[in-house]
Amino acid sequence: MAEYKSDIEIARAAKKKPIMEVGSKLGIPAEHLLPYGHDKAKISADFIASKRGGKDGKLILVTAINPTPAGEGKTTTTVGLGDGLNRIGKKAITCIREASLGPNFGVKGGAAGGGYAQVVPMEDMNLHFTGDFHAITTAHNLLSALIDNHIYWGNELGIDTRRVVWRRVMDMNDRALRGIVCSLGGVANGYPRESGFDITVASEVMAILCLATDLKDLQKRIGDIIVAYRRDKTPVYARDLKADGAMAVVLKDAMQPNLVQTLENNPAFVHGGPFANIAHGCNSVVATTTALKLADYVVTEAGFGADLGAEKFFDIKCRKAGLKPAAAVIVATVRAMKMNGGVKKEDLGKENVEAVRKGCANLGRHIENVKQFGVPVVVAMNHFVSDTDAEIAAMKDYVAGQGSEAILCKHWAHGSAGIEELAHKVVQLAESGSSQFSPLYPDEMPLFEKINTVVKRIYRGSEAIADKSVRDQLHQWEQAGYGNLPVCMAKTQYSFSTDPNLRGAPTGHVVPVREVRLSAGAGFVVAICGEIMTMPGLPKAPSSERIFLNEMGQIEGLF
Amino acid sequence: MAEYKSDIEIARAAKKKPIMEVGSKLGIPAEHLLPYGHDKAKISADFIASKRGGKDGKLILVTAINPTPAGEGKTTTTVGLGDGLNRIGKKAITCIREASLGPNFGVKGGAAGGGYAQVVPMEDMNLHFTGDFHAITTAHNLLSALIDNHIYWGNELGIDTRRVVWRRVMDMNDRALRGIVCSLGGVANGYPRESGFDITVASEVMAILCLATDLKDLQKRIGDIIVAYRRDKTPVYARDLKADGAMAVVLKDAMQPNLVQTLENNPAFVHGGPFANIAHGCNSVVATTTALKLADYVVTEAGFGADLGAEKFFDIKCRKAGLKPAAAVIVATVRAMKMNGGVKKEDLGKENVEAVRKGCANLGRHIENVKQFGVPVVVAMNHFVSDTDAEIAAMKDYVAGQGSEAILCKHWAHGSAGIEELAHKVVQLAESGSSQFSPLYPDEMPLFEKINTVVKRIYRGSEAIADKSVRDQLHQWEQAGYGNLPVCMAKTQYSFSTDPNLRGAPTGHVVPVREVRLSAGAGFVVAICGEIMTMPGLPKAPSSERIFLNEMGQIEGLF
Repeated sequence: MAEYKSDIEIARAAKKKPIMEVGSKLGIPAEHLLPYGHDKAKISADFIASKRGGKDGKLILVTAINPTPAGEGKTTTTVGLGDGLNRIGKKAITCIREASLGPNFGVKGGAAGGGYAQVVPMEDMNLHFTGDFHAITTAHNLLSALIDNHIYWGNELGIDTRRVVWRRVMDMNDRALRGIVCSLGGVANGYPRESGFDITVASEVMAILCLATDLKDLQKRIGDIIVAYRRDKTPVYARDLKADGAMAVVLKDAMQPNLVQTLENNPAFVHGGPFANIAHGCNSVVATTTALKLADYVVTEAGFGADLGAEKFFDIKCRKAGLKPAAAVIVATVRAMKMNGGVKKEDLGKENVEAVRKGCANLGRHIENVKQFGVPVVVAMNHFVSDTDAEIAAMKDYVAGQGSEAILCKHWAHGSAGIEELAHKVVQLAESGSSQFSPLYPDEMPLFEKINTVVKRIYRGSEAIADKSVRDQLHQWEQAGYGNLPVCMAKTQYSFSTDPNLRGAPTGHVVPVREVRLSAGAGFVVAICGEIMTMPGLPKAPSSERIFLNEMGQIEGLF
Repeated sequence: MAEYKSDIEIARAAKKKPIMEVGSKLGIPAEHLLPYGHDKAKISADFIASKRGGKDGKLILVTAINPTPAGEGKTTTTVGLGDGLNRIGKKAITCIREASLGPNFGVKGGAAGGGYAQVVPMEDMNLHFTGDFHAITTAHNLLSALIDNHIYWGNELGIDTRRVVWRRVMDMNDRALRGIVCSLGGVANGYPRESGFDITVASEVMAILCLATDLKDLQKRIGDIIVAYRRDKTPVYARDLKADGAMAVVLKDAMQPNLVQTLENNPAFVHGGPFANIAHGCNSVVATTTALKLADYVVTEAGFGADLGAEKFFDIKCRKAGLKPAAAVIVATVRAMKMNGGVKKEDLGKENVEAVRKGCANLGRHIENVKQFGVPVVVAMNHFVSDTDAEIAAMKDYVAGQGSEAILCKHWAHGSAGIEELAHKVVQLAESGSSQFSPLYPDEMPLFEKINTVVKRIYRGSEAIADKSVRDQLHQWEQAGYGNLPVCMAKTQYSFSTDPNLRGAPTGHVVPVREVRLSAGAGFVVAICGEIMTMPGLPKAPSSERIFLNEMGQIEGLF
């Protein structure tokens, strides 16, 4: 039976169409498709520019409840819905993020979807893909090298070596690089100072690439990056190091969206992958806006649960790119409801209707939240074989009580055939024109008030608190002209609060803002609430130990 | 006039053929060519395997005199000769190295050839190309992360943290990373220790990729890498960390040769680029051996002058891969002879026949040396407009006196039409069957004696000297079973001696071996004679400051 094949077996059995054919069906001429192998292609900047001013399709956001160890299947549902819309006769494109390479060697790699709702080629997408992340790593580290080189040659800009905020990056889980002292070894190697590495997806260059509208905008934003401060605390920009031109050159190809296909040969754009905590966690603006010119429906997802992912999608990506989502899908599962209702992972196989009902509070909160942005909502219940009829009914009832509808989806097992009902519902919502999207807060609101607005209206906390130094920093940035930026909240994805163990729908909690960071190039202020790790480590028995090429030259152990 | 166009202008005006067409002319079916854009492709492992056992074409090495600031044009001549052989009706493939990305941001980037003898696409080849170097960086740093991760989780293998010899790499000129202390910041980040970064081309992974015969051999060699020693000085291998499988997976695509084309639409393989001092400095074995199955003639080059480049090509690459070069071309110029004859760079424009005659000693020494390997030699005089008839005649006379022939080549200005005579001469030498190639020393010779053999017979020094610790180290390796490896000399490329200012053909100098390193995976012992820099820095005004995208989206300042 289909259900018993692994993701990788299904992916390997995929009958992929030549990518030029997939692109041609979207109306992209061959000369504007730059192939990477026969199953991946980049779309040329000229073609994208030629579509400017054209009519846009409808944008559908797929988001989720707070993630649980049970797994919700947000990407799987995003891919499945794209296939489902194509199945019911709509021209639809799925837009998702690229995967980071480094973490694959730590724990079993993340596929792009699962079951019969996957994007292929899976192996490439979990390895180098089209090289975008390598280009981002290179551009980032070029800037890092230019900073130390500038200091080495006399430091004309007066950089305070204690206040260099631009670190280095690597697409690798390497805890040994979190904190380093560099420039050791004597006169020829520069002035020793403390620094460190983050993982590439945490680079501001990644966030910039995902928010820039074209190469010109990319270069402008790179120039705006603050790399260091002087003794008098005035900022030094990437532009001051004349780094912006060369960095844009390094990113020239990475800026172009990647076209791949689903198992059902429908088009998917896979482009960009910023962190969902210290950055906004969505695929690139250029992929989404290009897809909107080429399709009736564009299905995209946001990182983590709706409290973080959807809020940033709306308040950062949509605000900045002028996007108007037509509908949102919140992915949830009976199993996750049960976990939110207090059931332990090992007991998930047993029917427990009461726990489902209790756990639905988390889902209800997310429904309310998304509606606050003026976007109509439908709930996708990603089906597991262990779900019982009574549990499913309890969840449907609850959602109906919230004024929305929960639809059972079996795309994992049956592909597009299993998600037709959701596709029809999404079309109905989108065509109804009921979306009245607007961001949560206006640009003009002071920065700390923006943070407080998210805390109160989305997290339902009593208030955001912060030391004077944090508030003073925000004031300084407001005075320097950064007050109109949106805020990017970095908080645990597991709870509405800052306590990852507090499931359900808590209220009245205090949200402490420990630190704020200015991503002047990307165009947001990061508010850090809790421990945020920007360079992961590897586990005791890393999955790299089990990754190898088999006798047929196929990759084993990556998935 | 053609002569007055810049390399980049000529490259941009190139009428490239679709790479699938270039590959098809070589008999490579479309399904075995993995395109990267429309002008680059990788050749599949299956296709390469299918050619095993077939007839080989003739291998021609292009090498040179010791480099001078005047520039000799070795790559230009390699590309020109490939075109010239095609012009006179031979099926020929040019095999050259890939360029390192990092150095492009320091000084004006190196093109692949020059004038009308270039390989295109030039921009891509100086940037990410097909991502091979990024894959090597990733594979190398994965191993680095696994070492510190192993120590962090309890160090079961008993690695002495003071004796970790595997550093990290980055494809960037970044002197601040030469010496670092890593794992700072407390318990969660591991055990602080000294380490550092080299540039990617200096990675042993690069040397391994360039010497491996296929993916299986690649994985085996990776497993053989020595990453650290225990307190008792026994080695810890990459295999002990179970890193070899995952590293081979990361390098799966990078292992496949890249097909591009010359300005005249002839095929060129551009693959691999190991350092020419601490490694062997040749393009990959897999590219060369594959090209030999597909063409009558394969023209390839070796790094630096013949004392380093050709010696390593013969003693490492040819020995290990079982290659039998049919002829060698030594590139020299009238200008370089004059510089070797004592003329300053600013006086190169003035005729000076006497200086040409005097400087020819350097060329004569290289001719003698190459002949020692049993390979017939012809000299390519790469023409400059300032060369006078009398100077050219003096050089030709000198070479004739050495029992060889010097042929004037004008490929830079005229493409293949300017190098026909050389092409005919190369064919004559190769077809004559006069090559009796054999390496300089047998595998069984003790390591220090191998070093001494190169010093005496190639560098014409009186002897190699080394501290007892160095000699003891070599003995230890011999006892551990590494005595049969060839030696890889790391010495200045500017002189036969270790003094870069000693031009011409010195004799009787002593060559001090400061340090030896074992590249157990690549399969050679490196003898370091003098200062060797494995992580370059950037200049005061790095070229990155002048690199940008122009209004047409073209890259400016990279060349």
